Amino acid sequence: MIVGIVGGGQLARMLALAGHPLGLRFIFLDPAPDACAAPLGEHLQGEFDNRRCLEQLAEKADVITYEFENIPEQSIAFLSERLPVYPGAEALAVARDRLREKSLFRTLGIPTAPFATVDSREELERAAVEIGLPAVLKTRTLGYDGKGQAVLRQPGDLDEVWERVGGVPLLLEGFVPFEREISIIAARGRDGRTAFYPLSENTHRDGILHLSLSRPGDPLQPEAEACAQRPLDALDYMGVMALELFQIGDTLLANEMAPRVHNSGHWTIEGAEISQFENHLRAVTGLPLGSTEAVGRAAMLNFIGTVPEAARVLSEPAVHLHVYGKAPRAGRKVGHATLRAKDEEAIQGQLGKLLALV
Amino acid sequence: MIVGIVGGGQLARMLALAGHPLGLRFIFLDPAPDACAAPLGEHLQGEFDNRRCLEQLAEKADVITYEFENIPEQSIAFLSERLPVYPGAEALAVARDRLREKSLFRTLGIPTAPFATVDSREELERAAVEIGLPAVLKTRTLGYDGKGQAVLRQPGDLDEVWERVGGVPLLLEGFVPFEREISIIAARGRDGRTAFYPLSENTHRDGILHLSLSRPGDPLQPEAEACAQRPLDALDYMGVMALELFQIGDTLLANEMAPRVHNSGHWTIEGAEISQFENHLRAVTGLPLGSTEAVGRAAMLNFIGTVPEAARVLSEPAVHLHVYGKAPRAGRKVGHATLRAKDEEAIQGQLGKLLALV
Repeated sequence: MIVGIVGGGQLARMLALAGHPLGLRFIFLDPAPDACAAPLGEHLQGEFDNRRCLEQLAEKADVITYEFENIPEQSIAFLSERLPVYPGAEALAVARDRLREKSLFRTLGIPTAPFATVDSREELERAAVEIGLPAVLKTRTLGYDGKGQAVLRQPGDLDEVWERVGGVPLLLEGFVPFEREISIIAARGRDGRTAFYPLSENTHRDGILHLSLSRPGDPLQPEAEACAQRPLDALDYMGVMALELFQIGDTLLANEMAPRVHNSGHWTIEGAEISQFENHLRAVTGLPLGSTEAVGRAAMLNFIGTVPEAARVLSEPAVHLHVYGKAPRAGRKVGHATLRAKDEEAIQGQLGKLLALV
Repeated sequence: MIVGIVGGGQLARMLALAGHPLGLRFIFLDPAPDACAAPLGEHLQGEFDNRRCLEQLAEKADVITYEFENIPEQSIAFLSERLPVYPGAEALAVARDRLREKSLFRTLGIPTAPFATVDSREELERAAVEIGLPAVLKTRTLGYDGKGQAVLRQPGDLDEVWERVGGVPLLLEGFVPFEREISIIAARGRDGRTAFYPLSENTHRDGILHLSLSRPGDPLQPEAEACAQRPLDALDYMGVMALELFQIGDTLLANEMAPRVHNSGHWTIEGAEISQFENHLRAVTGLPLGSTEAVGRAAMLNFIGTVPEAARVLSEPAVHLHVYGKAPRAGRKVGHATLRAKDEEAIQGQLGKLLALV
């Protein structure tokens, strides 16, 4: 079976690495000549709305999935008319628009920070009063890794912030003084069965994920699963979904969902029985979901900009290195390292050593 | 760095799957148009002594390794003059010839079954008397998966067996009434450091490996390591080596060594911290060896001839399926499944379920 992936970056690459052992083959649509997934399948080089490439993709692939949510709607519609696309167009439409996403959470009774739409300078004024400051102004679409966001701390910030991100559909969200950022990676198969990985505890730096720790046995696991279960079922979702949550005391607020494999689930390659990448492929190809059980404790450290010298990182014998084959560039995710150990103390000890090396 | 692999079968394929995350790329030399490693790198389609292919391989690769030992000597010599080849030509020459192999074991004080060379019908007669029956007549080169072997049970078998395998250089080996077939997968880095995986306990069917179980903590581990250490050091070996051993009581007899990753080490993908495939690549590319520690207990079941339907095998959620992408054919290794569990009881329970499925 040939899986077509819209996007040929590191997520597509890790999907392919997980899928070849299942006997799957891959075709990637990506405009970059050096798309890092390309060595693991066929690469259709073209923009995401290139009709000819989309036609080829539809012709050659048996099923379509994607590695990012900002795909032109018409492209997904074109593909969906011709072959199965998982997760489906509705899940994608919800996830790519913060307003629809937050509204779905609200409809499903999943707590979120307060939010209001902002389509003009006047609406921003009103929303700031309604929600209160501090608050975060976010573009409704096309945001990732903290891009398209600005924090409003006091009424005097409105002009400057409007200047910076205004002019496109926006959402103002109440600032959440969270204690912990967590995410839950969930999978739903074609038969409607769901499976949840142990929570990821995430630390960001400059808006980009820096560190994820697996948290098997976390007391908030049941609540996080309950939050993720609702959109999965409501959207008749197929594939892996990530739900980012903020913890305040014993309460979880849903921040956003990603209709795809997720950076905060990279630790599942080593730290779970079957990885998020394999389970996504199992789901979209109609195979039974695999076990999401933790294998010890895991920690995943992102490499941003450049990958440290391999010999140095690997001088710690239990480090699992994942280099994406991307050219170095400031702010770019170019690789990660994962550690796995039997308990919390051991993983923290190993992580300390790794952090000292890089 | 580009790793050139002589051979493009499942071992090359699994090497490539382990190597991409390290940032390595691959080029395979294999005469088969459908070489199953081909989707994971560049494929030079040609015989193993095709000069033009060897030239291209030498030009494009930074280092050479191989997935089987029956490579024409001149090809290895040609490559070795142009770029590093690991494991080196001497290791390969020893491993491809049962006489040199057994003689090396003897020289290094590693116990083996009694053996004698057989180059004629008369020598077979003499050897049968010297070694006693039952005994196994084996071709000195080109044997694998029980091919090129015949058992002599009584003097009356000599004619028939000579008819079948005679005419090439042979070795007669005393038949070993072993209690257990085990193997040890070892790795030696460019810095001379060695690492050993927990023992594999192997069961064969019709001369082909059927089942391997990881045996962390086996009482014979130290003796097996001592046996493997000697040829590794004597050959200034670089890469992964498998040593097959027979257990009789508390004694180990060395059967044969393979200068490469080995079927009985496939369980290390899930059942060890860093797999044999990754450690082989680390060794040949000059990176530090990774941890060979067991991750729970593992069992690996080979699929011979055909791979059972994926949906069926994966209905057990902890099964790890490895399909090689090879056309089905009787006696051919076309895939395997690995299980990992926390203890012996759990792994046996899982294995029972898997065996019932396939």
